[in-house]
Amino acid sequence: MKIALAQQNYIVGDFEYNADKIIKAIGLAKAKGACLVVFSELSVCGYPPHDLLCRNVFIQKCLVAVEQVAKHCKGIAAVVGAPAINPEPTGKPLFNSAYLLSDGKIQSVHHKALLSTYDVFDEDRYFEANHNFTMANLNGKQIAITICGDLCDNKPTTAGMRRNKVSPMAELKKQNPDLVINIAASPFSYDIDSFKLAAFGEYAKGLGIPIISVNQVGANTDLIFNGASMALNANGALAKRLNSFVEDIQIVDTEIDSFINAENQFEPSDYIAQIHDALVLGVRDYFQKSGFTKATLGLSGGLDSAVTLVLAQKALGNQNLRVLLLPSHFSSQHSIDDAVALADNLNIKYDIVNIKDSFDIINQGLNPVFGDLPSDLTEENIQARVRGVMLMALSNKLGYLLLNTSNKSEAAVGYGTLYGDMCGALAVLGDVYKTDVFKLAYYINREVEVIPINTIVKPPSAELRPEQKDSDSLPDYPILDGILRKYIENQKSANEIIALGFDAEVVTKIIRLVNISEHKRFQSPPTLRVSSKAFGLGRRMPLVARL
Amino acid sequence: MKIALAQQNYIVGDFEYNADKIIKAIGLAKAKGACLVVFSELSVCGYPPHDLLCRNVFIQKCLVAVEQVAKHCKGIAAVVGAPAINPEPTGKPLFNSAYLLSDGKIQSVHHKALLSTYDVFDEDRYFEANHNFTMANLNGKQIAITICGDLCDNKPTTAGMRRNKVSPMAELKKQNPDLVINIAASPFSYDIDSFKLAAFGEYAKGLGIPIISVNQVGANTDLIFNGASMALNANGALAKRLNSFVEDIQIVDTEIDSFINAENQFEPSDYIAQIHDALVLGVRDYFQKSGFTKATLGLSGGLDSAVTLVLAQKALGNQNLRVLLLPSHFSSQHSIDDAVALADNLNIKYDIVNIKDSFDIINQGLNPVFGDLPSDLTEENIQARVRGVMLMALSNKLGYLLLNTSNKSEAAVGYGTLYGDMCGALAVLGDVYKTDVFKLAYYINREVEVIPINTIVKPPSAELRPEQKDSDSLPDYPILDGILRKYIENQKSANEIIALGFDAEVVTKIIRLVNISEHKRFQSPPTLRVSSKAFGLGRRMPLVARL
Repeated sequence: MKIALAQQNYIVGDFEYNADKIIKAIGLAKAKGACLVVFSELSVCGYPPHDLLCRNVFIQKCLVAVEQVAKHCKGIAAVVGAPAINPEPTGKPLFNSAYLLSDGKIQSVHHKALLSTYDVFDEDRYFEANHNFTMANLNGKQIAITICGDLCDNKPTTAGMRRNKVSPMAELKKQNPDLVINIAASPFSYDIDSFKLAAFGEYAKGLGIPIISVNQVGANTDLIFNGASMALNANGALAKRLNSFVEDIQIVDTEIDSFINAENQFEPSDYIAQIHDALVLGVRDYFQKSGFTKATLGLSGGLDSAVTLVLAQKALGNQNLRVLLLPSHFSSQHSIDDAVALADNLNIKYDIVNIKDSFDIINQGLNPVFGDLPSDLTEENIQARVRGVMLMALSNKLGYLLLNTSNKSEAAVGYGTLYGDMCGALAVLGDVYKTDVFKLAYYINREVEVIPINTIVKPPSAELRPEQKDSDSLPDYPILDGILRKYIENQKSANEIIALGFDAEVVTKIIRLVNISEHKRFQSPPTLRVSSKAFGLGRRMPLVARL
Repeated sequence: MKIALAQQNYIVGDFEYNADKIIKAIGLAKAKGACLVVFSELSVCGYPPHDLLCRNVFIQKCLVAVEQVAKHCKGIAAVVGAPAINPEPTGKPLFNSAYLLSDGKIQSVHHKALLSTYDVFDEDRYFEANHNFTMANLNGKQIAITICGDLCDNKPTTAGMRRNKVSPMAELKKQNPDLVINIAASPFSYDIDSFKLAAFGEYAKGLGIPIISVNQVGANTDLIFNGASMALNANGALAKRLNSFVEDIQIVDTEIDSFINAENQFEPSDYIAQIHDALVLGVRDYFQKSGFTKATLGLSGGLDSAVTLVLAQKALGNQNLRVLLLPSHFSSQHSIDDAVALADNLNIKYDIVNIKDSFDIINQGLNPVFGDLPSDLTEENIQARVRGVMLMALSNKLGYLLLNTSNKSEAAVGYGTLYGDMCGALAVLGDVYKTDVFKLAYYINREVEVIPINTIVKPPSAELRPEQKDSDSLPDYPILDGILRKYIENQKSANEIIALGFDAEVVTKIIRLVNISEHKRFQSPPTLRVSSKAFGLGRRMPLVARL
């Protein structure tokens, strides 16, 4: 059976764009002799549609688009993803469904059983879970059509080591499928590929039949989908893997020797390289899909803004970037030099706007209010906020979207100024710990010194007061990030982290800083997600609470 | 049966505080001769705990607190709310449960069946739904213990006119209960009380038995709970209603004539009065529970900051408020006069900091970048942002939390400056349409002119350029708010709204403004919710999408 895997990049709610893309791929697959072409989960509307699913108009457009796509399925079948209306008067109004289209019409509809309601996912908000498992029939073959996590039901769910109540695969197995099709919209995190491969391989081998899984590619706001769609043979070996982070269409023939006897050849790439590619795609799609082309940021001479700028340059091109250097009383000459060197290396236009005078006059204006109270964090924050005003002015006047350059370590402990360096349309590094930002810098410099080495090796500093260093008030980054990863990604308690060997006093301090910063993160820009637990919709903490 | 309804105000995660409060009420109820005291949903941990429910430590603390409370239940029984661990290895790890405590221990546990997963609610993220309905037994009476929406299962769910798949009340009815107890954490919206009363009354009458429903009171971040706990007799009449927006404990005797024969005497108060009381409670609890006492805001002489200030003064006291007047080139003298008059009326300390010089010097700094490009929105935004810098400086230096003064109409259409007038720890009026802000002002002035009448009657203006008026670019507020209410609360489409008689061009423009402002609202402060659909967690829109 010749099957095309169509790994595409959709725009949520742009039915014309998505349907056009799907129809073109159907034509291409047909021309190449495929009898079936498979698209990803909710492909006609794009994933995740969030509360657009509550709008009747949106659902109607989904159904019209499916009908429109079906008309092009002549001489070839397709599986597309779209919501379906729950005909029962009780329960949620929709299903998350896969439509088998052929002979110009809908042949069968298959609903998702294991709805994702954890982390960034809210599927129980919209969808009813399927309890009625039926096989699709195509050219005399019995096909088990599954949606995303329905195929991973042999793995513990993310809520600890718990298992699902229903096993869609066990239900489908009873009906003796010849093939499993899986349509997915499974967001990238740097550890997910090996998890999925293991889960799929186990099933393919256990069932003794091939599995074809097509995943969405592209970024939608904070979520980045890496594609990496897979075809596994009946031995559970990965016979074909589509490219990561790009659109890709490839055809497999499940009946030829090279597929049947393929051996597993998957070598996962280094996680830093994956994060790099994910972030470039994340920035590019945020802009392209929003109709923007140009970006700005404040280039400080430090590591975070340097790495952000390189990623943005790869995503948007140097001609679409323009940056501001915003030195203050406390900026060192090396910071300015390093920033200029980077801008020159990348051939990016920059302006230097000294914020001293603005800073001074604002303080002067506040003098009648503050009298002779001593300088404190307030003045540090004023500097950061004046920079925010300058950058947003450039953004407003010239149409450059501001990129936020904060990293996950500082976002975690609240070392950032709301409405200052926390400004921005999109946080590029907000899910990347500082230790990984260093690795990204070395990865970027792996062939040529793009980022001045001084930017990487000098001690990190916010330069908001004389001689300030990050290490004045935080532990070294490897220790900080170690604690944060346990607390945030692994959801360990303070005692559990201390039991792993971290200093009790440091752990207590860091966890306290994380807890008292929830209100800051609440107003953060959307953050490109590359880990299994990013700040944002996937982590819902009460602001007013004893944590 | 003498039953105490204990309507209390909890702090999420403050187990000592909550348990202490519960134990005191048990003592009080016992002293007054009650045989049962009822507390609200998830009372031991406070509602909503959000992702704290994913932490084992948090769950352990809940269970310990329940055991601790149980020890005090001697000579009296209590129903408290807390999570329970799902003993099955499959499904979600917890139940949302009611514990019947007596004789110093847990007598029975009853789980919620109809989990709330819509709007601000994410219960399917944490909880398994109950399918096993059992009666509680107390002093020979059979009691149906239900949790929040389990009792409203005769009403359509919020997802259109759809109904629930399970009817907990039908299941419990089969077991012939003598009484229904309901524990709830049902957030306030200005239209919910009559809905609940109708639903409860219908059930009490249908079953021919009394219903006791205890609701949480108090605000937790954005959500405000009004209490208004109810006791209905077997005729479905409201025999006792606890006070709204305050803690209250009252005892009903379900076996005396005055309860059995009580007639429904509920007169809902005006919705503006309810919103007023809700917002005062919302501000007060945000501060008290966060450990803050003092607030600031920018007093412009306009309506929104005036109403916000009065609400804050009622919540926190005039001695805890200090405001800035921040006039610019374009501020009119009447704005300054009106602001001063209000501050004087409320006896609130104010400073006047003219932002002209700061505005000028920032523009001067940007001159090398912008050259002789004409003035536009950029300069308007710079004014708003300089005000943000000033207010946040006051906040940082002197410990005053900044209150955001934006109303729902402007938040909806994006008429606000990110990092400018959109700054703040808490948006007080962010769920109140401008037409209702006017009504709040008149309500505040109902006995004495607190807010200068000129502030109310003058044409609304942002005063960011000469002669600017809101009506330059927006329809009159009654029309604007009419369209917004249909689009946001009622989730109607453009065509449906036009069919109601609104001008097609205006509707199209307004809906477009709402859609292109999602990115601004994403970075808004938490917003006190008083309607059935507020901006924030209850409305999840993709930022990058065709809407």
